[in-house]
Amino acid sequence: MGKILHYFGAGPAALPFEVKQRIQKDIIEYEDSKLSILELSHRSEYFSNILDRSKTLLRELYAIPDNYQILFMAGGATLQFDAVPLNFSGKAKYASYLDTGFWSRKAGKLAKKYLDVKFVAGLIDHANEICCLSSSEWQVDAQSAYLHVTPNETINGVEFVGVGNVEVPVVADLTSCMLMQNIDVSKFGVLYAATQKSLGIAGLSVVIIRNDLLGGASQITPDLLRYDLHVENNSIVNTIPVFACYVAMLMLLWVKEQGGISVMVEQAKLRSKLLYDAVDSNSKLINNICKKNRSTINVAFTSNYQGVVTGLLDTAEKEGLIGLQGHRRAGGVRASMYNGTSIDAAKKLARLIRLA
Amino acid sequence: MGKILHYFGAGPAALPFEVKQRIQKDIIEYEDSKLSILELSHRSEYFSNILDRSKTLLRELYAIPDNYQILFMAGGATLQFDAVPLNFSGKAKYASYLDTGFWSRKAGKLAKKYLDVKFVAGLIDHANEICCLSSSEWQVDAQSAYLHVTPNETINGVEFVGVGNVEVPVVADLTSCMLMQNIDVSKFGVLYAATQKSLGIAGLSVVIIRNDLLGGASQITPDLLRYDLHVENNSIVNTIPVFACYVAMLMLLWVKEQGGISVMVEQAKLRSKLLYDAVDSNSKLINNICKKNRSTINVAFTSNYQGVVTGLLDTAEKEGLIGLQGHRRAGGVRASMYNGTSIDAAKKLARLIRLA
Repeated sequence: MGKILHYFGAGPAALPFEVKQRIQKDIIEYEDSKLSILELSHRSEYFSNILDRSKTLLRELYAIPDNYQILFMAGGATLQFDAVPLNFSGKAKYASYLDTGFWSRKAGKLAKKYLDVKFVAGLIDHANEICCLSSSEWQVDAQSAYLHVTPNETINGVEFVGVGNVEVPVVADLTSCMLMQNIDVSKFGVLYAATQKSLGIAGLSVVIIRNDLLGGASQITPDLLRYDLHVENNSIVNTIPVFACYVAMLMLLWVKEQGGISVMVEQAKLRSKLLYDAVDSNSKLINNICKKNRSTINVAFTSNYQGVVTGLLDTAEKEGLIGLQGHRRAGGVRASMYNGTSIDAAKKLARLIRLA
Repeated sequence: MGKILHYFGAGPAALPFEVKQRIQKDIIEYEDSKLSILELSHRSEYFSNILDRSKTLLRELYAIPDNYQILFMAGGATLQFDAVPLNFSGKAKYASYLDTGFWSRKAGKLAKKYLDVKFVAGLIDHANEICCLSSSEWQVDAQSAYLHVTPNETINGVEFVGVGNVEVPVVADLTSCMLMQNIDVSKFGVLYAATQKSLGIAGLSVVIIRNDLLGGASQITPDLLRYDLHVENNSIVNTIPVFACYVAMLMLLWVKEQGGISVMVEQAKLRSKLLYDAVDSNSKLINNICKKNRSTINVAFTSNYQGVVTGLLDTAEKEGLIGLQGHRRAGGVRASMYNGTSIDAAKKLARLIRLA
């Protein structure tokens, strides 16, 4: 392996080095199972312990109340974009989707196959700055089975924390902010996250659902998308992605060892502040998100000066800072900093941003 | 790690040791990417090469004609049980399912949500032996959009090879016999397989589909279950399970290095013959599948003598042969021998079966 490298990719995300070392060991033999973690049966006691431990850790880290179930499901967030409406549409006709950017719109668009979707404005333009409306300003139709929200939008780097008191159950896509935001679970009906950002690798999602919201699935819901079936079978409806569950457990353990979610939140604030301060200090660079809604996780910016963005990306790559290209729909620069990103990486990048 | 161990689990299955070693190396850095294989972006050139290479290898190994697409999709076979009918039900009303056991019945049962399903008898009782009907005896309704078949049933160990000439497109679940049966792809409309048996780890499926069968998806099909969308996006509809795709590539490479599918088929025949000969030589053991339809992959048997099954399982475990418990629905003994299982493992087990 060459020089030290810092990875700012949007996901699959950087993993802590010690987690990779632990995985490397378990590829040959997991605990005393005499099997590789890759060979472990989803019906073995070893795996049952992995699932139980993951649930206990997540319940502890987020103080998840007893009336919520924790599920592990194959597939990523886009599959949940269909699963969420399918699990409500057996009983419900309407759903609301808070529009805060690309991902929340995509979620709403997919839900239209099953429900009448009403988009709720979530952003406002304040003197050339984009801000999130506060939850008291959301116009939510009371007939909605739920309000879907995306607390962190990765493409433009927009974030809001907390949902206040909404009349209908709130469903949140935490894919890009899981374990990186302080969340009061009791304010939500359903929380879901694909695991490839803060919980390991791609191909798995975690779903947290309040008991009273189970049982509303439409008859056309594929078995592997049914929340109730996952509750009944302790997430083992078929051969679950064993390895992805195991990596999620390691990430949960790692977060606990680091001091829990409040520590993760502080580090995200620290890393992103280093970058935003550098962007704001450089008159050639633009970030037009208002300060209170700048994402602490995905820092996106661009420039109207020719060559500045490509120059910065080139210099960064030479210094071992990679994965910084903006999303293909947005261009510019984007630094995605999940829990595996060190403060040191942010410092190095901040220095280059100041010099750009 | 303790003494040499032989694993006969039904899946996730045993992986060749050299494949595990290669994975172990790539956990820290994949090629010259400076990233772990676990961190690699699904939109990177490295991953694009993994997908291309996997497709080329599979196309070569099975001589897949140009008018078939190869797709990689998140989730296992149970998700495909819903995906198959959903991808036909936009245009079709009827489907036929060949009943050869638990898995084919389950596939048909799930399809009933979307189509009118007709079960076709696939098994017959011949003087206390269970046999598969030959394809010329299948009673397939010509109105069916497709006939679904399961060439290898893992629970009772029933296998048939080849489908002859069926009037409607044949859809086959190859999850448990992928890369272990000689198959003339041109006789099929769709072939699919979850990857945790012969193609690596759980959480991914490979789908091979003839071009003219694309475009029939019903409006209610979740995006991540649409075959046409996967074709349009070269399988990257969202963040695909990168690591599972990489392990599938390693398994395809490994099969090619071993000499290709014909070698895999011969080894499966050899391993299973060792076991069936031992079972037949022991009057205390029962396997009631007729010889031509005994699975070369999953060898299942039981005993009417008290203590024989548990005695054999205990002895086997002491000798390092594990994962031999029959399926929880069938009981008895089951040896699942996918491509990662050595001839030596089968020899050791055959010796114990003779002594049981």
